[in-house]
Amino acid sequence: MKTLTVELGDRSYPIFIGEGLLSNSELYTPYIHGRQVLIVTNETVAPLYLSAVKEALVGYQVDEVILPDGEAYKDLTTLNFIYDALLEKQHNRTTTLIALGGGVIGDMTGFAAASYQRGVNFIQVPTTLLSQVDSSVGGKTAVNHPLGKNMIGAFHQPQCVIADVSTLATLPKRELSAGMAEVIKYGLICDAEFYGWLGEHMTGLMSGDVELLSYAIQRSCQDKAEVVAQDETEGGIRAILNLGHTFGHAIESHQGYGNWLHGEAVGTGMLMAVDLGWRMGAVQKSEMLALRDMLLAASLPVVGPRDMGPDDYVIRMQVDKKVLDGRIRLVLLKRIGEAYVTSDVPKELLLQTLQAGEQLGCV
Amino acid sequence: MKTLTVELGDRSYPIFIGEGLLSNSELYTPYIHGRQVLIVTNETVAPLYLSAVKEALVGYQVDEVILPDGEAYKDLTTLNFIYDALLEKQHNRTTTLIALGGGVIGDMTGFAAASYQRGVNFIQVPTTLLSQVDSSVGGKTAVNHPLGKNMIGAFHQPQCVIADVSTLATLPKRELSAGMAEVIKYGLICDAEFYGWLGEHMTGLMSGDVELLSYAIQRSCQDKAEVVAQDETEGGIRAILNLGHTFGHAIESHQGYGNWLHGEAVGTGMLMAVDLGWRMGAVQKSEMLALRDMLLAASLPVVGPRDMGPDDYVIRMQVDKKVLDGRIRLVLLKRIGEAYVTSDVPKELLLQTLQAGEQLGCV
Repeated sequence: MKTLTVELGDRSYPIFIGEGLLSNSELYTPYIHGRQVLIVTNETVAPLYLSAVKEALVGYQVDEVILPDGEAYKDLTTLNFIYDALLEKQHNRTTTLIALGGGVIGDMTGFAAASYQRGVNFIQVPTTLLSQVDSSVGGKTAVNHPLGKNMIGAFHQPQCVIADVSTLATLPKRELSAGMAEVIKYGLICDAEFYGWLGEHMTGLMSGDVELLSYAIQRSCQDKAEVVAQDETEGGIRAILNLGHTFGHAIESHQGYGNWLHGEAVGTGMLMAVDLGWRMGAVQKSEMLALRDMLLAASLPVVGPRDMGPDDYVIRMQVDKKVLDGRIRLVLLKRIGEAYVTSDVPKELLLQTLQAGEQLGCV
Repeated sequence: MKTLTVELGDRSYPIFIGEGLLSNSELYTPYIHGRQVLIVTNETVAPLYLSAVKEALVGYQVDEVILPDGEAYKDLTTLNFIYDALLEKQHNRTTTLIALGGGVIGDMTGFAAASYQRGVNFIQVPTTLLSQVDSSVGGKTAVNHPLGKNMIGAFHQPQCVIADVSTLATLPKRELSAGMAEVIKYGLICDAEFYGWLGEHMTGLMSGDVELLSYAIQRSCQDKAEVVAQDETEGGIRAILNLGHTFGHAIESHQGYGNWLHGEAVGTGMLMAVDLGWRMGAVQKSEMLALRDMLLAASLPVVGPRDMGPDDYVIRMQVDKKVLDGRIRLVLLKRIGEAYVTSDVPKELLLQTLQAGEQLGCV
């Protein structure tokens, strides 16, 4: 087992990474301060792992709430099921919520914890690659609104994160790919060495090699933790974590949440950002093609939805959180391994990227 | 105009108290950092003051959302109307919400601000005595859940508070009384001198004397600010602000929110707490009777609902936020002007208080 600490002063917390961790009671008990626990999970994950987690929590008042599975349920209505459970079982301010599932469960449980009685503790037990490398670091919690993704939320740090790599064995291949998009992102924005390593090991990673996956998760969390530690509430540098996300959110929003997986949209969005960087002269064509190959090796889409035109992107990019006073701000690359944020995007080149379609990354 | 600063480090903010303030643009502009403003108000307050506030905000993108009036609408469904307005008008992270109304508007707008895009700025313009002396200090924001009051919320400090005493002229008498209950509370818990002053001036205060009201608001905010500054997120001393609230919440919850005004329930709850204190030997009978007289002078009820028995109280007190691991914790008085929190309440005496009914404060 590897242990990584996210350094955030008195809100610092450990991430445990390894095999078979979710049934290990010693990882939970130091981080549960009351006698009450509510496990929040979904219909897909519950049959696989709920009983193992409950066995690790003998001696506590353990309640559970099982939500429907999917991004479509990441809303205020479903969030309210968590509050209902907490209040029906009379959970008080010393309760601990445990998020057992992927990013949707983590985000919703985190926001429920942030807002129940104005804030209670929670523990993340992410069971997807995406949530292990993304939502387990940074304390971002949220639900969606019909008019925008993650528009309602809070910054709320967990007590600890238990990333059990064994759970990836039951993860659908498509979701492994989606998670891999975020792993690739860390290489692109701040870790050229790791990016090189990923190029060499993508086949092994996608075949489910536990050693390789453990290393990739650890390195991704480390990279993210370093960025978050510099900027907990996203005033500045943290925005580079959104490489590909402004394009990606536009795709998700246009297609209806849940049709494209978040990681799929981000993967294509990263290629669009790098395509734009190439048009702006910052990235070599060969580097852009190498990224395209890596995304293909991870079974990720490398072109946006066929029914989306440039206008469809622009309208949706205007309401993205990264927009300041109407100007589109984007995360772009200076070079592989170094990202920056800019509002100074030549509109002409942006439109070329949005129009590239099939030719994205290969003109 | 008086200016009071709530000292909370980098979250410190001023409270402006005086006549005719809500139309003074100079009080707003230093505290609005973007170009977008959303005024949140209700159907009762909008016809009275909305246009005056809008005139003070010339030059900004000013949008508005007018909610139905009343505690019954302090819920997730109504909260969502605020998010709808923010997203329909494409408000970004630099937006400022302005809460124009009483405590319900302040609490909901504050929580919307705390959670919209994980946190944006807000300004409080409280238009009731209760909200001027209570919710304008302390940063508590929340909505109700069918199973409990203020169960979903956040700590989120405003940029400034503009307490316009002129608005009290249009306030229904019953609401002036409800606010006065909280004013009396500050005297009881931490300011014996102020409590004495209130005893002398209750008639003038209730007749709407602006000078007297300004002083009472200022002193109440000062008292509350001092308590809050010691304990921003309610770990300890701040709990004394809940004198009367555990009994009061039980009354409100049993009667259905909005039938008893919050201040009315707290007023009766304070008398119950003092009655219990008398039974425990901490408070003189004459002091208890003086409080009863002061509540009557403020046209406040001095006996709980006739249809509530001791069991009705106890069940509802169990789910109160002040409960730790099943033990009822109460705020009681050591003496007039000094409160403390205890879980060590003799059950027998508590039941006597809950059974006292008409005899409360006068056996």
